[in-house]
Amino acid sequence: MTRSSLGVAIIGDGLMAKEHSMALRNVRPVFGAGLPEPRLVVIVHPDEARARAAAEQYGVERWTTSWQDAVADPEVDLVDIVTPNLHHRDVAVAAARAGKHIWCEKPLAVTADDAQRMTEAAEAAGVVTLVGFTYLQNPGLALARELVRRGELGDLFSFTGFFSADTMIDPDVPFTWRTDRSRAGGGAVGDLGSHLISLARHLVGGVSRVAGLSRTVVPERVDADGVRHRVDNDDHTLALLEFSNGVIGTMQASRVQTGRAFEVSFVLTGTRGAIRFSQQDSHVLEVSLASDGLDGHGFRTIELGPGHGRFGDLWPMAGINVGLHELKIFEAHELLSAIASARAASPDFREALAVERTIEAIERSAAQNGAWQLV
Amino acid sequence: MTRSSLGVAIIGDGLMAKEHSMALRNVRPVFGAGLPEPRLVVIVHPDEARARAAAEQYGVERWTTSWQDAVADPEVDLVDIVTPNLHHRDVAVAAARAGKHIWCEKPLAVTADDAQRMTEAAEAAGVVTLVGFTYLQNPGLALARELVRRGELGDLFSFTGFFSADTMIDPDVPFTWRTDRSRAGGGAVGDLGSHLISLARHLVGGVSRVAGLSRTVVPERVDADGVRHRVDNDDHTLALLEFSNGVIGTMQASRVQTGRAFEVSFVLTGTRGAIRFSQQDSHVLEVSLASDGLDGHGFRTIELGPGHGRFGDLWPMAGINVGLHELKIFEAHELLSAIASARAASPDFREALAVERTIEAIERSAAQNGAWQLV
Amino acid sequence: MTRSSLGVAIIGDGLMAKEHSMALRNVRPVFGAGLPEPRLVVIVHPDEARARAAAEQYGVERWTTSWQDAVADPEVDLVDIVTPNLHHRDVAVAAARAGKHIWCEKPLAVTADDAQRMTEAAEAAGVVTLVGFTYLQNPGLALARELVRRGELGDLFSFTGFFSADTMIDPDVPFTWRTDRSRAGGGAVGDLGSHLISLARHLVGGVSRVAGLSRTVVPERVDADGVRHRVDNDDHTLALLEFSNGVIGTMQASRVQTGRAFEVSFVLTGTRGAIRFSQQDSHVLEVSLASDGLDGHGFRTIELGPGHGRFGDLWPMAGINVGLHELKIFEAHELLSAIASARAASPDFREALAVERTIEAIERSAAQNGAWQLV
Amino acid sequence: MTRSSLGVAIIGDGLMAKEHSMALRNVRPVFGAGLPEPRLVVIVHPDEARARAAAEQYGVERWTTSWQDAVADPEVDLVDIVTPNLHHRDVAVAAARAGKHIWCEKPLAVTADDAQRMTEAAEAAGVVTLVGFTYLQNPGLALARELVRRGELGDLFSFTGFFSADTMIDPDVPFTWRTDRSRAGGGAVGDLGSHLISLARHLVGGVSRVAGLSRTVVPERVDADGVRHRVDNDDHTLALLEFSNGVIGTMQASRVQTGRAFEVSFVLTGTRGAIRFSQQDSHVLEVSLASDGLDGHGFRTIELGPGHGRFGDLWPMAGINVGLHELKIFEAHELLSAIASARAASPDFREALAVERTIEAIERSAAQNGAWQLV
Repeated sequence: MTRSSLGVAIIGDGLMAKEHSMALRNVRPVFGAGLPEPRLVVIVHPDEARARAAAEQYGVERWTTSWQDAVADPEVDLVDIVTPNLHHRDVAVAAARAGKHIWCEKPLAVTADDAQRMTEAAEAAGVVTLVGFTYLQNPGLALARELVRRGELGDLFSFTGFFSADTMIDPDVPFTWRTDRSRAGGGAVGDLGSHLISLARHLVGGVSRVAGLSRTVVPERVDADGVRHRVDNDDHTLALLEFSNGVIGTMQASRVQTGRAFEVSFVLTGTRGAIRFSQQDSHVLEVSLASDGLDGHGFRTIELGPGHGRFGDLWPMAGINVGLHELKIFEAHELLSAIASARAASPDFREALAVERTIEAIERSAAQNGAWQLV
Repeated sequence: MTRSSLGVAIIGDGLMAKEHSMALRNVRPVFGAGLPEPRLVVIVHPDEARARAAAEQYGVERWTTSWQDAVADPEVDLVDIVTPNLHHRDVAVAAARAGKHIWCEKPLAVTADDAQRMTEAAEAAGVVTLVGFTYLQNPGLALARELVRRGELGDLFSFTGFFSADTMIDPDVPFTWRTDRSRAGGGAVGDLGSHLISLARHLVGGVSRVAGLSRTVVPERVDADGVRHRVDNDDHTLALLEFSNGVIGTMQASRVQTGRAFEVSFVLTGTRGAIRFSQQDSHVLEVSLASDGLDGHGFRTIELGPGHGRFGDLWPMAGINVGLHELKIFEAHELLSAIASARAASPDFREALAVERTIEAIERSAAQNGAWQLV
Repeated sequence: MTRSSLGVAIIGDGLMAKEHSMALRNVRPVFGAGLPEPRLVVIVHPDEARARAAAEQYGVERWTTSWQDAVADPEVDLVDIVTPNLHHRDVAVAAARAGKHIWCEKPLAVTADDAQRMTEAAEAAGVVTLVGFTYLQNPGLALARELVRRGELGDLFSFTGFFSADTMIDPDVPFTWRTDRSRAGGGAVGDLGSHLISLARHLVGGVSRVAGLSRTVVPERVDADGVRHRVDNDDHTLALLEFSNGVIGTMQASRVQTGRAFEVSFVLTGTRGAIRFSQQDSHVLEVSLASDGLDGHGFRTIELGPGHGRFGDLWPMAGINVGLHELKIFEAHELLSAIASARAASPDFREALAVERTIEAIERSAAQNGAWQLV
Repeated sequence: MTRSSLGVAIIGDGLMAKEHSMALRNVRPVFGAGLPEPRLVVIVHPDEARARAAAEQYGVERWTTSWQDAVADPEVDLVDIVTPNLHHRDVAVAAARAGKHIWCEKPLAVTADDAQRMTEAAEAAGVVTLVGFTYLQNPGLALARELVRRGELGDLFSFTGFFSADTMIDPDVPFTWRTDRSRAGGGAVGDLGSHLISLARHLVGGVSRVAGLSRTVVPERVDADGVRHRVDNDDHTLALLEFSNGVIGTMQASRVQTGRAFEVSFVLTGTRGAIRFSQQDSHVLEVSLASDGLDGHGFRTIELGPGHGRFGDLWPMAGINVGLHELKIFEAHELLSAIASARAASPDFREALAVERTIEAIERSAAQNGAWQLV
C-alpha cells in the first residue's frame, strides 16, 4: 500500500457491500483529498453470477468466487467483510495473517470465542480493524460523549436502551441465516442488541453482570425452498445490566416490535443531567442539564450541526438528518484515517469482542431463565 | 347511610385531601344526580390549626385531631385515607371494623403484610374499598383494555414501563416521610413503581418473578429542622419482570430522572399489535395494529373522546387533555357507583395488595443485588 | 354582596354551565379561603324540565325559565352567561344595568357592534367582566408573557397560530346554532379563531390589518328535526395578520381539520428567541433562546410547575397536564379575585371587543375574496 | 453521448458540487448497472486554485476557469449548474444551445423572466432538464401523491407549509450573495419558500393568487471583507395562497426562525383525510383518514419503506431516515433515467418556472404591503 491508494477486497455482495462500496468512494468528496484513495480491487461471492453482477453494480475492478484468493491478492490492503456472520471468523483470521487491514460488519462473530480468535489474530498481526457499530458515528454521540467527559451529567447512574424493529413481526418473513443460531449467533440480541451494548460501553463503560429474558415470538419459519424450520434464536430480549462502575440499566432488543420499524434510542442519566438519543431523530440530541437556567428542566433539543462530530464535513447548516448512509461514510473515514496514521480505529475488534462477551452473557442468562451472569 | 347522602371523613390534609374533596363534589355535576351525594362531614389532622384550616379550605363541616373519633362518627359512611403511608394500616383496619367504606391513597401500606391485614379486615367487614392508582382511570386505559380483550394485539409478550419524575433530583429537596423507609416503605419503586405495576396487572395480569436493581442517588438529605438523615429507600429502580402468563417486561421507577418531570408511560406489545400510553400525552392513546390497511405500521394516535371510558361524561369533543384532576373525579365516580350498587370497586384492596407484593419482591431483589424473587 | 358570599346566576345549561359551576366551587379548595364564596343561587333555561334538571345536577339552589328574573334577583351578584352566542348581548346589557358582575363565554357576541354595546353597558355600570378565553389562563402563557416582558425573545416579528379541530369534518354532524350565522356569528373563525386572536393580543398586541380566506367545506347540514340547511359561516379560515407594532402573522381556524381533534398551538418568534405553545402538550412550554449556552438552538421543553402562573396552587410538582377543567378553575379565581379587590379582570369585555373587531375584519375580508381590511 | 457513459461538467465548487458529484457516482451502486455511467469530465470555478482543488476532491478528470469552455466541451453531455443563482441563466441558456442536458440547482434564476428564457432555450433545444427541488424526491412525497391521486383525502381544501431555518438569525452571519437581491433574487422566500411552492404544486396544483408580508429582521450585515451592506431581500415571509382549484393555503419561509434549524413541513387537508410531512421526520409520513376503522382519527405514522418511492432501492427495511444526501441520489437517478429514456425529468425547467412565477408574485405582494397579486 502506498499513501495514495488502498486496495480493497469486498467479501460478500449484500446490502452492506453496497453501503461500504459507496462509503469508501464518498470519503474523498466529503473529507477532501488528504487520505489514501480506496481502490475497489475485487469482490467475492461463491456464486459466480452474483459475484460478476456485484462487481459491475458496485464498480469493483474484478470478481472471484474464492475469498481466499481475494485475501491473498497482493493488490489488496484492506479486507472488507460483509458476509453472513458465520464467515467472519475464517476470513478475518486469514486476512490478519496476510497482514491486511480489516473492516468487519457486526456482530463480530457467531460466538465470543470466535471473536476472541479474530481479535488475537488481528492484534498479533498489527493490522487496523474496524467493526460496523455504525450508530457510534452519529454526531449526536460525539456530543453525548463530550458532555459526559466534561462532567455535565454529573455522576452517571442509569442507562435504558431500546433497539426496536418490526422486521420479523410478520410470520411469513422467511427463515434465513439470521434466524439460525449456527449461522447468526443470537437473534435480536446479537443483531440489534449488540448496537445498544456498543453505545452503552462508549458512554458508560463495561458491563459486569447481566440478567436477560428472551422470547421467540414466531417459533417456526419457512425458508426460501419451502422447508419449515424451528427458529432457535431470540426475536425479543429484555435485560437488566450492571456496569463495572455501578451504573444500572435495562435494554430491549427486538425484531418483532410492532409500531417501531427501526428505532435505536436510549436515555443516559446522571446526577446533574440526562441525554436522550434516537437514531430516527438523527438531527438532534436531547439534553437536560441541572445547570440550565430556567426552571422546569425538561429536555432541550440540540439541533446537530457543524460543531458536532463529523457533521460539519457533510453540511454547513444544522438540523439535517444524518442517515445510515452518511454514518457509513463517517465510519469509512474513521477507518481510512486510522490506516493513514497507523493508529487504532474505533471501535476495533477488541472493543467488539467486549460487546460479544456481553451479548453472550445475556444469551446464557436467557437460556437459564434469567439467572445472573458475569460478563 | 341513605341513598341520597354519603358522609365522608377525610383523614389527612395534604395534596390528596384537596384533590379528594374536590373530586367527591364534582361527581354530581359531571355524572348527574343518580348517585348518593357525598357530604364532607369531618376532616382530621393531629395539628389542630391545620385541621381547622383544612376544614375551611376544603369545605368540610367539622374537624378533629382524632382519626379514631372520625372513623367512629356515626355520620361517617366513607373513610378517605390521605395520610402518609405509615398510617394507612391502622386507620383502614379500624374503618373496616367500624363498617365504613374506604378510599385509600396508594401505596396501600408500608409493607405488604400491613396491606394484607387491611385487605383481610375490609373483606371480613364487606365494605367497599378503592385505592388511588389513578392512571387506571385514564380513558386511554379503557381503550387499551378493550383492544387487549378483543384480541387486537394478538398474544401479548412484552411490557416496558417508565414512571420517571425528577422531584428529588435536587439534593436540596428536604428529607421527609417519603425518603424514610419506616414511614413510606419503598422510595421511587413504592411511590411510583406501584402505579406501573397496577397498570401492568390491569392489562397483562399477575407478575410471577422479578429482579430489580436500585440506586439511592442522593444518599443523605436534611429535614425541615436542619437535621441530616440517611435516605434508606430507593431513588431509582430498574427491574426485569416475568408475568404468570409468560409475558416479559422491564420497568423504571425514578424520582431523580432529570428531564422527565412526571411521566408515566408504557409500551405493551403482542404478536399482532402494540399500544403506547403516556400520561403526559393524555389526550391520545398510540396504537399500532397489524390489521391496519396501509404499509408501514407505525403507531397511530387515537385522539381520546366520548367513546373511551368516562371521557364523554366530561367532554363532548375528542382531544382534550385529561389531567390528574379529572382522573380523580373518575375515581370518585367509580367509588360512589360501587357503593351505590353494592359491588366491588376497582382497584380494590385485594388488587392493591397484589401490587404491594410485587413491589416488595422487587425491593427484596434489589436488597440482594438483583437476585430473582418470586412474587 | 358581602365579602363572604357571592350569589351567582347561571344563564344556560350546557357544557359550560357544568364547567363554570364546578370551577366556582373548586376555587376555594385550590386557592384557600380568602375569597368570597360563590353561592349558586339560580340557573336558567327556557325549558322548565331542563332548568330543573340542571339545578339538581350542578347543585344550584333554584331554577327559573326567565333570565330577566335571574338577572334582577337581589341575591344575585354575578351573572354567568353560558348560552348560545345569540343571547349574550341582551343578558349582559341587562346584567350590567342591574349592577351585576358578568362572566361571559366567548366569543363575546354575534357581532362586534353587539360586543361594543355590552362593553359600554358594563363600563358605564362599573361592573367586573370576564370573558372565557380560557387558554390565557394556561400557566405556560404566564411564562410566555414573562419571557416576552423580560425581552428574552428580543424584538418580536412573527406569530403563527393554529386552532385545529375536527368536530365538524363528518358531514353527518347536525346543523345547530353553531353553523348558523344569525345565532353564532362566525363559524370556525369566530368560535376557535377568537381564541387565537386573544392569545396573539396577549403576547404581541393589537392586530391592525388582516386578509382572510374561508371555506365552508360541508355546505349543507341537517338539523335535529331532519331539516336541511345551508351552512352560512366558515368551517376553515386562513388569515394573514399585521400587528400595530409591525409583527406579522398567520392563523388557521378550523373545525374540519382531520387528524387534529382539538389543538391550539402557536409559535411566537423574536430576534433572540421563540416560544412554541400547544394546549395538547399542556404540561410544557417550548422555548428557544439565543442566550442558551450550547450550540444548536432547538427548542427546549420547560416542564410547567409551581413557578409558572397559578400552577403551584394546583400541584407541588411539575409536569402535570393542565386541562381545560383546571384552566376554568384558574379563570374563576381570576374573576373572584378581581371582584374581591374591585379591579378589572383579564380578559374583560373591552379586550374581548378588540378580539371581536379583529375576527369581524377577517370575516369581512373573507367575504371579499381576501381583500385587506383594517381592524 | 453513448448509452454507457455520460460526460458531466460541474459548474461551481460549493456544497452542491460536492453533493451532485457523489450523487452521480452513487446512482449505479444503488440502482444497478442499467443506466449510462456518469463520467465527471470537468469542473469549473473562476478561481484557478479552487477549480483545481475541487477537481481533486470530487474526483473530476479536468478543471477550467471558463464555464463557456466546459459547456462547449464535446465530451460533456450534461451541464450541472451549482453556482450562485446569478449565473444560472447564462450557463443554462448556453448549455441548452449547445444541446447539453441540464441539472440546475434551485431557485431556477434570479428573476422569473430569466427562468423563462432558460426554459424556452431548453425546450427549443429539446434537452432534458432537472431542477433541484430535492424534497420532491422524498419517498413520503411519493406516498402522499399516491394518496391524493387515489382520492383517499377526498376533496383537498387546505395546504399550510413551513420552511423554517435559523441559518441567519445570528446578526454576525456575514453578508454574501444570498443576502443580495441582485445575485440571489428573493431571500428566504426564494431560497426556501420555492421548495414549499414546489411541494404544494406537486400535490395540489398551480397557485393563482398570493398575498405576502416580509420582514428583513437583520437589516445590515458585514461581508467577508468587513464592508457593511444593507440586506435587500427578505429574512422571513408569510403568505396567503389561493390555488387554481380553490384550495387555500398559508406558508412561512424563514431563515431566522429561532428553534428550527432546518425544517420543511406541511399539512395537506381534504374532506376525507389529511397528511403531515416533515423532512426532519424523514422516516415517516403522517396520515389521517376518515376511512380508518377506530374512533378518534388522529394522525398515524407510516414508517416509510420499500413500498414507497425509491426507498426500496436504498434499504430493505422500513423506518430509516432518508437524508438530503440520499434524496440527491434519487434526484440524480431521476435525471439519468430521463436522459436514458429520452423523456422529461421531474421537476423540469417548465415546472421550476411556475414556481418562480409564484415566488415572484409573493415578492411583488410583499413589496406592496401585502396587496394581492395574480401569479
